[in-house]
Formats: sequence, C-alpha cells, structure tokens
Amino acid sequence: MEKTMDKIVNLCKSRGFVFPGSEIYNGFANTWDFGPVGVELKNNIKRAWWKRFVQEEPNSYGVDAAILMNPKVWEASGHVQSFGDPKMDCKKCKQRFRADTLIEAHSKGSVAAEAMSNEELEKYISDHHICCPHCGNFDWTPIRKFNPMFKTSRGSLEAEADVVYLRPETCQGEYVNFLNVQRTTRAKVPFSIAQIGKSFRNEITPGNFLFRTIEFEQMEFQTFCRDENSMEIYEKNKAAALQFAKDVGLKEENLRFHDHDKLAHYAKAACDIQYKFPIGWEELNGIHHRGTWDLSRHQEFSGKSMQYLDPVSNEKFVPTVIEYSIGADRLVLAVLCEAYDEENLENGETRVVMHLHPALAPYKVAVLPLQKNLSEKAREVYAHLSKHFMCDYDEAGSIGKRYRRQDEIGTPLCVTIDFDTLEDNTVTVRDRDSMQQIRLQIDKLVQYVEDKIKF
Amino acid sequence: MEKTMDKIVNLCKSRGFVFPGSEIYNGFANTWDFGPVGVELKNNIKRAWWKRFVQEEPNSYGVDAAILMNPKVWEASGHVQSFGDPKMDCKKCKQRFRADTLIEAHSKGSVAAEAMSNEELEKYISDHHICCPHCGNFDWTPIRKFNPMFKTSRGSLEAEADVVYLRPETCQGEYVNFLNVQRTTRAKVPFSIAQIGKSFRNEITPGNFLFRTIEFEQMEFQTFCRDENSMEIYEKNKAAALQFAKDVGLKEENLRFHDHDKLAHYAKAACDIQYKFPIGWEELNGIHHRGTWDLSRHQEFSGKSMQYLDPVSNEKFVPTVIEYSIGADRLVLAVLCEAYDEENLENGETRVVMHLHPALAPYKVAVLPLQKNLSEKAREVYAHLSKHFMCDYDEAGSIGKRYRRQDEIGTPLCVTIDFDTLEDNTVTVRDRDSMQQIRLQIDKLVQYVEDKIKF
Repeated sequence: MEKTMDKIVNLCKSRGFVFPGSEIYNGFANTWDFGPVGVELKNNIKRAWWKRFVQEEPNSYGVDAAILMNPKVWEASGHVQSFGDPKMDCKKCKQRFRADTLIEAHSKGSVAAEAMSNEELEKYISDHHICCPHCGNFDWTPIRKFNPMFKTSRGSLEAEADVVYLRPETCQGEYVNFLNVQRTTRAKVPFSIAQIGKSFRNEITPGNFLFRTIEFEQMEFQTFCRDENSMEIYEKNKAAALQFAKDVGLKEENLRFHDHDKLAHYAKAACDIQYKFPIGWEELNGIHHRGTWDLSRHQEFSGKSMQYLDPVSNEKFVPTVIEYSIGADRLVLAVLCEAYDEENLENGETRVVMHLHPALAPYKVAVLPLQKNLSEKAREVYAHLSKHFMCDYDEAGSIGKRYRRQDEIGTPLCVTIDFDTLEDNTVTVRDRDSMQQIRLQIDKLVQYVEDKIKF
Repeated sequence: MEKTMDKIVNLCKSRGFVFPGSEIYNGFANTWDFGPVGVELKNNIKRAWWKRFVQEEPNSYGVDAAILMNPKVWEASGHVQSFGDPKMDCKKCKQRFRADTLIEAHSKGSVAAEAMSNEELEKYISDHHICCPHCGNFDWTPIRKFNPMFKTSRGSLEAEADVVYLRPETCQGEYVNFLNVQRTTRAKVPFSIAQIGKSFRNEITPGNFLFRTIEFEQMEFQTFCRDENSMEIYEKNKAAALQFAKDVGLKEENLRFHDHDKLAHYAKAACDIQYKFPIGWEELNGIHHRGTWDLSRHQEFSGKSMQYLDPVSNEKFVPTVIEYSIGADRLVLAVLCEAYDEENLENGETRVVMHLHPALAPYKVAVLPLQKNLSEKAREVYAHLSKHFMCDYDEAGSIGKRYRRQDEIGTPLCVTIDFDTLEDNTVTVRDRDSMQQIRLQIDKLVQYVEDKIKF
C-alpha cells in the first residue's frame, strides 16, 4: 500500500477533515479550512500537547499573546531587517524561486543549502548550471531577500497610518512577557512559558497541503535557564519532543533528529525532528538553543531590564533560552499520514482505516442503531455519551457501511444498539483496529471509553 | 463593595490573568496578552461553549476556517463596500470620533444612534449642538465612513500584490463551507455549523480593557433551516444563549435581552444579550435572523449553487440562517467582573475572591504543603492530580497567605498536606467559597474534584 499525499488530501476532503480555504471562490493561496472532524482532531492534538507540556509540567506556564504586536518587537527580533528567504527570478519566464530550494532539489537533498550565504548559493547554481524548473533556461537575477512578514496598517487614515506586522512567529509573545509571567507566578529558573497560536508568513511557494501554508499554528515553549544548565535542558527537551511525537502515534522509524549544520552566533546547538512525510523527510519540530539573544535584544530595544533576580543568591542575569517549537498543522498532517491504512479484509474487500490514537480521534464513539426503529433508544445512549465525549450518530445505510465510514474518520469505538439492548441494556462495542466486538452494559460505557482514550 | 474596571484590570495584571500587549514597548493599541491563569480561564470558557453548542448538540458541527480568505468573500459579504462606522473629525483639534457614539454619550444612551443614517446623525449633532469632547469646540467635518478591515497584501512584490483582508468576522467561514459540511456529515436541516476563532477590526477607539479590541475571538454558530421554522429556532437559540450565560455564572439580574430597533432588510428579528459591565449595559451576545442573505450573496458572487437538497422531498432551496455570536474576550471580561468579590472576614480583614465557576477556574486544585519539609509528599500529590487537572503548587509563605493567593485566582479547592498525611494518606480540602475544610483520602481526590468541576 502506497501512502501518497493525494490519497490523504482526498480522504480529508471527502470525509470532512480539511477543505480548501474559500473553496467556492476556487480557493486562496494554499489556505485550508478544518472541517467537522478536522477541527476535533486539531483541537485534540493541541490539548494533548498542552496537557503534556503545560499541565503535567510543574514549572511551565501558558500565555496567549496578541497576534498584532508593537512593531518594535520585530525590530528587536531582527525580522524587520533580515528576515527572509533568498529569492531569484528567472529573467526569461519571470517565475520566482528560492535559491536554496533549487539547490536542494538539484542535489536531491544531499547539499544543505539552507546554511549557505547568498554568494555561496549563487556560485553553486552557476557552477552546477541549475536551470529554471519552469522554462528550462539559465538566466537568473541576483539573489534578493524578500521579507515574508505580512504588513498591515493601524490607524484611521492610511496616510497617517502606522505599519503593523502579522506575527511571523509566536515565541516573541513569551519573550516580551517573560518578567510578567515570572513576577505573577514567582517561578524560579529553569521554568518554561508555552503558547499555542497562529503565525503568518507571506511564503512565495506555499504548498504540499498543510505542510507549508501562509497561515499556520505553532505550539511552542521557551525554557528560561542558567547558561550552565542550558545544554542539559536542551537534551532533556529533545528527548521530551521525541517522546511526545511517538506518544501521538508517529512511528519511531519515521522520526529522526537532524542537527543544524550551521549555528547562529549566539547558539550552542540546534536540531530539528524530521518526519518521513509522503513528500520525504521534512521538518516537524525544532529544538533550538537561543542563548541570551532574544531577551538581550528586547532589553536593548525596550530599555527595560530583562534580568532575572535569583531569590536566593540575589544574582541578576539575563537567562539563556531553549526553544521547542512544533507546527500544529504539520503535526496534524503527520498524524493523518501515519494513521492512514488500507487493509485487505478476509472477504476480499479493502477497508480504509485511520488508526488515530484514541485520544486524538475526532469522535470517541459512534452510536449506531441496528435498525431505524431502534433510534429512540440509540438517541438516548447518544445523549448520555455526548455529555462526556464527542460522539457521532448514524442510522443511514447497512451496519457494515456505517462501520467503514467510522473507520475512515478514525472513530475508535462503535456502539451498536439492537433489540437485545431494549431487553437488557447491553450494547455491542466494536473496536476500530481489531474489529473485535464485545457486549457491554450501557452504564459501563463511559468508564470503558475513558480508559480507552487516556493520553 | 464597588466593582470598578480599574479593580478588575489591576487584579488581572497582578495575578497573571491579562497583561497589556507588548507591555515592555509601552503596549500597543489596546491589545492584551493572556497570562498563565488568563489563558486557562479563556480556554475553559471556549471548551465549555464548545461542549454546550457542538459536543452536546446532535445537529451541530465545528469548523476552523483560515483567517485569510479569498478577498471575494468580503465583496460578497458587503464588507468591502459598506462596512464601517460613521466618523467625524473635529476641525479644531483634529481628533476623530464616531458620530453615533457622540450622540449616545450626549443623550446618555436614550437615543439609539446606531440605527440612524448619516444625515440623521449629522442633523442630530447639529440640532443638539454636540461639541467635541476633547477640545469643546463645535466645528465638525461631514461624516465619512472608514472601513475597519485590516488590509494586507499577498504575493512576492508589493507592486504586483493582491490585497487580502484580515477577516472582520468568523461566520463567513461557515457560509462558504456550508455545503462542504453538509455533504461530509449528511446533515439535514435544521443543523448548525460552529466556529471559534480570531477576527480583526481596525477600531478607531478601542478601549475598556477587553471590551473593545482590534483583535478579538468570536464563538459563534449559524443554524441553517427552512424559513418557516426560522423564528422558532431564533427563539430557541435566544433561550439557549441566555441559559449558557447563566450557566457560566453570570447572574440573571445582570443580563437582559435588547431587541434591535432597526432590522436589516432581509431579517425577521435581531437581538443582543447585554451584560451589566462596570461600564454599563453593553452587548455580550447577538442572535440574528439573517434570512437567506449570506448564502444568496455567495451564490451570486461565486457562481456556485448554495442550495440545500432535501433528501426526502427532493426540494432545493437556499436555507435561512439564524446566527448566534458571542465575543470570547467579552465573555472572559463578564465572567471576571461577575466573579470578583471583596469579603469582610470575621477577623476584620478583607479577602478578594474570584467566585469563578469551578469548570472555568484556571487551576482546579492548589497543592500546599503545610511546611517545607512536607514538600516531597506534596509534590507526589501534585504529580498525581496534574495528570487529571490544571493544578498549582505553592510552598511559599504562611498557609493563610497561600489561601488568599488562590482565592484571588479563583482556585475552587486547596489541598493541604500536613504531618497526618504521611501517617494516613489523608489531606485537608478547603473550599474557596465557604472556606470550609474537610478531610479526605488522597485516592478519593480525583473523583471529588471531578464532581466539583462538572459543566
């Protein structure tokens, strides 16, 4: 069975995971809308992440910062001045490309072009005579940086308006609030501040479904620590990141660490966790040592002290930061790819089944009356269960067909109401993965489901 | 005890509910960042809403649409052409004001200026000689409409760029996906599509803390129905809206319906639910009959049929829409205002306590070792409970002081670990509201908390 992106995209559209954004207007710039089951999957992934990295982590605190921040934030962060990808235009066909992407495609990923300077990129393209993938000519402009921050303006008249950026990353929300959080929680280093939220980048070439989009959601936390402990925390966070990726169901064989070839001047270490998507190994998760760079820059640009005061030693210092960041949409995509399966059944048929972790599955239970005249009892069971879980209800079509529908959206348990249910208050519970069925008392259902969906 | 906005804002800042956005850069345009307890409160409110209006509602389906939509969406919706507030400038001091707000302030709310035409507004201001609130002069420009949609541009060069808007409302995400959702869920009218997400409006005069902000989160659902059932559904949704507001803890005496004085040409009815904020009665929640306006416009502008096909009668028609919409940030503000209390204790002290509904409280439990040498056991209890709930841990200061801190952030239960705990595995559980204490086995705690926080 070959897992292709096309199969995933088609299942997402036909079953309500993900629709093209503004589809009735022929879409828009690779934006995507999460449908009824997609929004549940994504929310469950966000909750599982928050549970792991905020709720269960004693020294971790959440924030939810505004998307529109004071523009000085982006001067301090360096985004206004030097954020951007190296772009070249083909002078013949006027198409625009990322120079590093051209090299990586040409070298089939064997050259780490991301770490090259503009001069190195131009030289490589020239030496290897890399032609335009669109028209085949070799006639490039020099490399130019294009700042991918979306700009808008605040104020009443455009003439007098101030420029505002849509944040290209969420972590600045933690940095600018570092002392607010520390003060109100009385946290001691090492401690983390976590955030889930949207970021925006005016990508020239968004694509590959949810993989690269102009609007995306990040789940990330920043650990503030003493520099002497920073590498230990870096290693701990790397391990925790891998563990989480495995716990949401990604197979170890499809995950790998990828150390960065070139480090920022302030960093002691940086790595990604890559996942083997149908399009190849690609970045899913980053763990970056950021030194004291971010807080120091904010100290410089805001004129406000960003120093931590140690309550025991009375030392004052700007903490070192270890960053963990994962794309929520990319993780949704990875989870969907991993879960997708086509199974050959004994009767010769093929079933498409999403083996989603039960904690992530959009619906925990589907309630299915065996026949329509059992729907009153089935509605009762549905009402009872839906006080506790997201449940689906389906009375249309044969029971086999209804099981298949639930398999395709990854519902871990199907509860079938039959005529015995009316007699003895028992139901058939069918397991998505094993297709085994057991008989259970209705009043035992909630606990049974609870046990199944633990994360 | 007087509840003022200042008291609420100060508590929010000092206890970590809400910080000014980009505070180290002296803030930004009335944006706000949710701090460690604020993000939990807001997420709990969003979850309670989703549980009520999606999970427990059999014919309700969620979506999560992109913020950046095809610009044609905003042509169809009418926002490009006619969205905007009536603004006047004082020619003397150059300050800008909303004409309707000037009239409402001048008439102390007795005149419904919102429903007036520009000519009516100008005439009223002239007839009543309403002067500039800033400089006191009477020298106004004519009214101009200012479109409060934030504009940005997509594409690689600004010259060739296409304009893109930040969505000023979320509901268009449901309208454009109406048939995608219907097709994938096989829903029959009446059914609802729900969404929680951010919207943006370039408000000239944002203010009153979380009440009016340029970036805000909406929780809303659109019920698609036959026109002949629409008023019945309108009434049902009104009742459900009021019930929800009461269930999250808003007192009935602080809630009222406010019917709109003037209806859009397509609407059969429209009302708000107002809440008595410290700034007065203000809109919290809207329930609007929207006729077939939105879907018809999208049908016209997209050229795609937006008709529903009745599977029994084979009739085809564009459904009528009933809209329910509430601001998540406004609801956070209302809940904070309602919960705030200053109680005079028997010992003559005053305690500030947030009587938040336990389901909404940021932390469900605070674990407090009576002395520092009990912290090992306390950490164990914390680790056990935090698998299930957001918990706080505090070992600094006297136990009375620690109870006060938890009161101020609304933690419903404090669990105190003392020397008896080491002997018999029991703890003291202290209730926030009654301040009563009971003794409980540790292995009974999870169930005890579960029962307390039901929604």
